[in-house]
Amino acid sequence: MAEDKPVEQAVEGDAPAGPSKSELKRRQKEADKAKKAAERAVKEEEEKKKREAAAAVDHASQNYGKLPLHQSQERHGQKRFKFPELNKDAVGQHVIFRARLHNMRPQGAKIVFLSFRQQTLTLQGVMVVSGEKDEHQVSKQMLKFAQTIPSESIVLVEGIIKEAEVKSCTITDYEVGIYKLFVEVEAEGLPFSIDDASRPEADFERMETEDVQFSRVSLPTRLDNRVMDLRTPTNQAIFRLQSAVCQLFREELNSKGFIEIHSPKLQGAATESGASVFKVQYFNGIAYLAQSPQLAKQMCIAGDMERVYEIAPVFRAEDSNTHRHMTEFVGLDLEMAIEEHYHEVLDVLDSLFLAIFKGLKEKYSHEIQTIRKQFPCEEFLFLDKTLKLEFKEGMKMLREAGATDGAGNPIGEMDDMSTENEKLLGRLVREKYNTDYFILDKFPTAIRPFYTMPDPVNPSFSNSYDFFMRGEEILSGAQRVHDPAMLTQRLVEVGVDPKSMEGYISAFRLGAPPHGGGGIGLERVVMLYLKLGNIRRASLFPRDPKRLTP
Amino acid sequence: MAEDKPVEQAVEGDAPAGPSKSELKRRQKEADKAKKAAERAVKEEEEKKKREAAAAVDHASQNYGKLPLHQSQERHGQKRFKFPELNKDAVGQHVIFRARLHNMRPQGAKIVFLSFRQQTLTLQGVMVVSGEKDEHQVSKQMLKFAQTIPSESIVLVEGIIKEAEVKSCTITDYEVGIYKLFVEVEAEGLPFSIDDASRPEADFERMETEDVQFSRVSLPTRLDNRVMDLRTPTNQAIFRLQSAVCQLFREELNSKGFIEIHSPKLQGAATESGASVFKVQYFNGIAYLAQSPQLAKQMCIAGDMERVYEIAPVFRAEDSNTHRHMTEFVGLDLEMAIEEHYHEVLDVLDSLFLAIFKGLKEKYSHEIQTIRKQFPCEEFLFLDKTLKLEFKEGMKMLREAGATDGAGNPIGEMDDMSTENEKLLGRLVREKYNTDYFILDKFPTAIRPFYTMPDPVNPSFSNSYDFFMRGEEILSGAQRVHDPAMLTQRLVEVGVDPKSMEGYISAFRLGAPPHGGGGIGLERVVMLYLKLGNIRRASLFPRDPKRLTP
Repeated sequence: MAEDKPVEQAVEGDAPAGPSKSELKRRQKEADKAKKAAERAVKEEEEKKKREAAAAVDHASQNYGKLPLHQSQERHGQKRFKFPELNKDAVGQHVIFRARLHNMRPQGAKIVFLSFRQQTLTLQGVMVVSGEKDEHQVSKQMLKFAQTIPSESIVLVEGIIKEAEVKSCTITDYEVGIYKLFVEVEAEGLPFSIDDASRPEADFERMETEDVQFSRVSLPTRLDNRVMDLRTPTNQAIFRLQSAVCQLFREELNSKGFIEIHSPKLQGAATESGASVFKVQYFNGIAYLAQSPQLAKQMCIAGDMERVYEIAPVFRAEDSNTHRHMTEFVGLDLEMAIEEHYHEVLDVLDSLFLAIFKGLKEKYSHEIQTIRKQFPCEEFLFLDKTLKLEFKEGMKMLREAGATDGAGNPIGEMDDMSTENEKLLGRLVREKYNTDYFILDKFPTAIRPFYTMPDPVNPSFSNSYDFFMRGEEILSGAQRVHDPAMLTQRLVEVGVDPKSMEGYISAFRLGAPPHGGGGIGLERVVMLYLKLGNIRRASLFPRDPKRLTP
Repeated sequence: MAEDKPVEQAVEGDAPAGPSKSELKRRQKEADKAKKAAERAVKEEEEKKKREAAAAVDHASQNYGKLPLHQSQERHGQKRFKFPELNKDAVGQHVIFRARLHNMRPQGAKIVFLSFRQQTLTLQGVMVVSGEKDEHQVSKQMLKFAQTIPSESIVLVEGIIKEAEVKSCTITDYEVGIYKLFVEVEAEGLPFSIDDASRPEADFERMETEDVQFSRVSLPTRLDNRVMDLRTPTNQAIFRLQSAVCQLFREELNSKGFIEIHSPKLQGAATESGASVFKVQYFNGIAYLAQSPQLAKQMCIAGDMERVYEIAPVFRAEDSNTHRHMTEFVGLDLEMAIEEHYHEVLDVLDSLFLAIFKGLKEKYSHEIQTIRKQFPCEEFLFLDKTLKLEFKEGMKMLREAGATDGAGNPIGEMDDMSTENEKLLGRLVREKYNTDYFILDKFPTAIRPFYTMPDPVNPSFSNSYDFFMRGEEILSGAQRVHDPAMLTQRLVEVGVDPKSMEGYISAFRLGAPPHGGGGIGLERVVMLYLKLGNIRRASLFPRDPKRLTP
């Protein structure tokens, strides 16, 4: 309205001084004309207002807006549509769904494209201003409203499914024609966009040769704002896969007669080495957080439970700030009585890993594809019959490849294997045997815990093993010493006063069957299978020496 | 030998003084007689020794003994027999199995009965001294050896399955004829016997009227020697049932689109009330042990995971020494986005409990029967369509039954419900509705946490609920406040500075869908379903203010 000049002002502004009669007549005529013009203008103005008022009647006003706070006011049993249900049969159907508003793009004055997200999937929505006689009314006001909704808000959408060719969404064959759009929850203060948080490294490499600009979201920023970060399709898929690993672990072990246990994380004494254990103020005393369920699961075996597993947090007070250490992680532990030979345990563990690898490949290809878009990597290789090398053979391969110890000397046969040499061995094995997964058996006794059963023929080696994925250890295990006399002797040999471990030893005086087991780090399996490069990416809310939140 | 008078002594002892000639002759005759008798006796002695030496050649010496320490010396792939495989087809089969020696009872010089135990089952073994021509040799020495094996030792048995009528074992239709018996692991220093640890209360009641004596094993003694205690068939069954509850929980939720999460137990700040949280020394700072995964699971919902559950330890630093409190227990937690109404959560939780109750009844009747022998109780009752009462109705039933508050006054409509009144309500509901399981909905807002969503019509009540088993609460849950403004307001109303909870509130600024959930105490479910009377009986290695071991 500010730009329209009022008619009255134009009339008064033109009035001169000292007029003649003909001049007056002329002026009278002009005044009459002006009056008529003014009357006409007023009339026009009135009509314009009438027209505007008519247009302002928003026939779509019931079809959009902000919903009141959801306090479970009503329950209609309305069917809510989920994107994975989309298929040919859905075309032409009217659906109601809730989703995140992923992003929005207006096209001209009458069309807006909205992209909706449900977990790993995005669906294009199109909102077009309707004609007067259309069944579903979409007004200009509604279009305007759609453009004011902040990204990441939760919206309730009603529309019709149509076939389409879509490039900017994960669902490329369908879109939804929107005729109702309500905001259920408004989002505010986004730390970064989901698109930025979902970029593969390749996008940033493009910046060096092409005229494009992308924001990189650093890992600390992601972790500080983990709620936001978890919404990326990559993370949605990672944590479904993490969940799947646990399901597959249990399914396989349940089918083999294992039962699940829950052992206490609060301990009266440090269970293994005292160095890396967290202390807890326990009423007027001190407790320790379990570094592993080692003793508990062995007690279960001594208690005749035969085959047990546990999935539970494990705590390590190590001040390690690496890509593969956390102070709290999820341990997949198992322990079982041995009938004849500890290779029975090895066989169970191997079938377990194969079940996990096969299960992921068969049932989670959508998730793996989703993750690969951001973290591309070569396929994880494994053999039908798993490669099992003895430690000695592994060391031989390393020596032949010129591997050295930390000081640059050729490695000795009984040396511990450094992280670096483990990785090298992984590469050598991949080249020679075409697998990213193998077992190293028969570790030297000297580099394993005191409760490891020595080999019956050569006690310098032991009935112990590590499992590797992509050159990193993901499982460590062994036959355990179940004989109290030998346990005592082993403690003396490693320089520990057996009296300090009396609680441990006493569990075996009551008679424990020969047994063995192993412990797997859940996040490591996920990280290595997907090659995520940092274990924190495989943990919902990772904990390390410098991070205790969120 | 001490009772046989030596011949020489008898001769010398009878010699008188001053003999006549005839007397001498007579004596000579007697001496000759005695000499002959002595010679005969020596000969007899020699023959006896020969016979004994002949008998000492033990033709069964390969069939028994103590095995060398099991260090996985060999792997033959020998089939080991498990008692649950026993059926008609097994009769006449030769089997090899490992078991505990449960107890032993000799019968005469040639028979010994041994009872073998595998987890919940005991099988009678009979060892009979064989004839010379029997295929399998069992010698007297072997019989003697069997009688020296300490109870609870682990033995390797070979024998033939026979039909039999047995009273003293859980397997009553079969026994095993033993012809090989080796000790694999010897047990020592047993704190109590499995039989004593398995007695029902009724046994001790018999002591008042009958001439019988039984040892009672107290709960603290059991828990101090938990490895031994876990071997009772009752405990074997209890922990299989505990494992089953978790399996059923997950199966039901997996089928409804939930995914499993693992949230950190180490927290940077106390998540709920600061009073009952354990402090952990975390490098140079302080961490807290999670009292529940409440915030973490809500963050997952805000992070678009839609439906999540977690099975993990929960820590409560409450100095409560009751039958139903522990400082560490296993929480079965779930949280889900709500579409229309929080009763969607209620429905999921209810179907979950029904799945657990039905699953236990259908698949674990052997375990339940085993436990009932020691802990007899009435069948757990539940309805096809679960009873759902409003809190108000529950309070009305209590008032009508004359329930009072702690001070002896009639209870008010909005009072908190005392543990005692909860139990009374459980009895009233059982009488009226014939169920041990029901839901109490719509608790007063004032007695629920600040993050509980108020009822949309009457904000004095809330969208919250408890589930009950046998008159004790086993689940508490609610729709949560997902709106940051309302959360802030609620904090102010309950007198907490919203700034102190900024971390919690900020998770909701990014937009969280309406959601709700609940938390179940695993050990409570097991305790109440089986009516074990003390939660420690449903925990492998319970932790309370006074117990941190084993």
